[in-house]
Amino acid sequence: MQAPWVTFRPELKVLDCTIRDGGLINNHQFDTDLVKAVYQTCVEAGLDYMEIGYRNSKRLFPKEKFGAFRHSDEEDIRRITGDHDEAATGLRLAVMADAGKSDWKTDILPRSQSVVGMVRVACYVDQIPEAVEMIHDAHEKGYETSCNLMAISTLQHAEIDQALQSVAETPVDVIAVVDSFGSLYREQIDILVGKFLEVAKATGKQVGIHAHNNQQLAFANTIDAIILGANRLDATMAGLGRGAGNCPMELLVGFLRNPKFKKRAIWKLLQDHFVALRQRMEWGPLVPYIITGQHNEHPRAAIEVLAGPNRDKYVEFYDRIVGE
Amino acid sequence: MQAPWVTFRPELKVLDCTIRDGGLINNHQFDTDLVKAVYQTCVEAGLDYMEIGYRNSKRLFPKEKFGAFRHSDEEDIRRITGDHDEAATGLRLAVMADAGKSDWKTDILPRSQSVVGMVRVACYVDQIPEAVEMIHDAHEKGYETSCNLMAISTLQHAEIDQALQSVAETPVDVIAVVDSFGSLYREQIDILVGKFLEVAKATGKQVGIHAHNNQQLAFANTIDAIILGANRLDATMAGLGRGAGNCPMELLVGFLRNPKFKKRAIWKLLQDHFVALRQRMEWGPLVPYIITGQHNEHPRAAIEVLAGPNRDKYVEFYDRIVGE
Repeated sequence: MQAPWVTFRPELKVLDCTIRDGGLINNHQFDTDLVKAVYQTCVEAGLDYMEIGYRNSKRLFPKEKFGAFRHSDEEDIRRITGDHDEAATGLRLAVMADAGKSDWKTDILPRSQSVVGMVRVACYVDQIPEAVEMIHDAHEKGYETSCNLMAISTLQHAEIDQALQSVAETPVDVIAVVDSFGSLYREQIDILVGKFLEVAKATGKQVGIHAHNNQQLAFANTIDAIILGANRLDATMAGLGRGAGNCPMELLVGFLRNPKFKKRAIWKLLQDHFVALRQRMEWGPLVPYIITGQHNEHPRAAIEVLAGPNRDKYVEFYDRIVGE
Repeated sequence: MQAPWVTFRPELKVLDCTIRDGGLINNHQFDTDLVKAVYQTCVEAGLDYMEIGYRNSKRLFPKEKFGAFRHSDEEDIRRITGDHDEAATGLRLAVMADAGKSDWKTDILPRSQSVVGMVRVACYVDQIPEAVEMIHDAHEKGYETSCNLMAISTLQHAEIDQALQSVAETPVDVIAVVDSFGSLYREQIDILVGKFLEVAKATGKQVGIHAHNNQQLAFANTIDAIILGANRLDATMAGLGRGAGNCPMELLVGFLRNPKFKKRAIWKLLQDHFVALRQRMEWGPLVPYIITGQHNEHPRAAIEVLAGPNRDKYVEFYDRIVGE
């Protein structure tokens, strides 16, 4: 399972979640051209998965306000991918369904009617019972599945153990550590990924990692998870993602030595689309995101302050977060 | 020597090299106000060292072209620090002297005539003989000393071993791993810091780390070095430094748990000075710096391309670096 770092583990797979996670910045109001370019880049760069969006509820996220990839209807995905050919492209499409926010019973079609091959179930620890139902449902409909346990940095280890136990009994394929707040250091990644790996090894599942970049540690924590044995890695182009963003794909693919991954396609995407995108959207480890990450808080307060006239008042923001 | 990560190692010391390393971007043409603010912040944040500049040659770096802190004359330092009181402030001032670029015999005064307490000798591996002379000279003049072996990612391990052997025989206090190109991954840091620690333990010296941020790994690699046992850490305010910049002080101090370090002073500096500085100077892990880091090259080519009309032509730059 381990490999010397100058070689590679063939079982290690990379998932692009640029549009899904980035859409949390702009309510998924992306131009079709950009989504197509990301899809094409995933194919050309040899990535294993593209999570194209959420499959969340149109009642909770109305079409007037939210773009297509908050719901990822089949026809909207096909508008980007055509009749996506998994075997020919080597790329599997994924959608994310949030516990508590998805009409999954009706909105997730049988896999034979979908271009999607994987359903990722995201949940907070108190939503584990619904997540278990969602995993069973998606598995029975024919999908590969994952369980992404969010905001893990806020949980007691006893809670994590119980959550893992519940999920271990399901047919879920991947269990993923999600550092939603970008607050974890290497020593904590070691402990958490270690816990997940124990369960995964006993049940034949794989461990995933989804890191946020508040402390410029998303890439480093992903490397740490790889060294420990995690084989499912999330990253985004230019690190695009809510708040501080995610593990940048261009860094991850530079580190991985599997010759099937092609960096050049990613540089082309960044050059042709992301230089311009940076003018319209803001993400990355800005000071307010560092501060929420250091104090293990949701980036909400940082997002708010950055949208207003006090965006550069770091001391005031720090005092507020630490409650001085 | 090791400490659980929720506590701290009192022997671990932090050095700010904002002005010294940042000055490589602008030929050390900093406003006096900024240098004063960084100095004041080092004192207020409880940092252990401030490397205020180079003590390099006025023949090689003429006064007409280079600012005061390329040479760090005593009167220029005193203009910032007054009669700096090490004991009262807890801060020791340092200067860096480059082998091959410093008139160290004449320009480094006896310590009794200087506000500086430490001389850091920077060298490439082929300059070790001069570095050894410089260390002896500075030591005899009364200074704490370090040897910073630059561009270590380009060296064979046999070269490193020989360099370490030469330096081990000197009275140097600190031997530092310098990832000049920002190309090292954790596995390589493990090997290099391990080598340095072996020599350090046998000779009663300390190991330092100076990381560059091309791959967003400067902070993570510094954490790795801390975990291994390095006790002398370089960082800069907002990561200011040549090319991709350095390990950001605001992240490092967030990680360290020694209560003497105060983050609030750093947020104030970033707010009052660095928001504006970002409008005048550019640094950070931009794509061309990522590319030179990934390919273990000096950032020179990236600096050049970023200064010209092709700064966003990533594919062309990548092709050039990989020689396609």
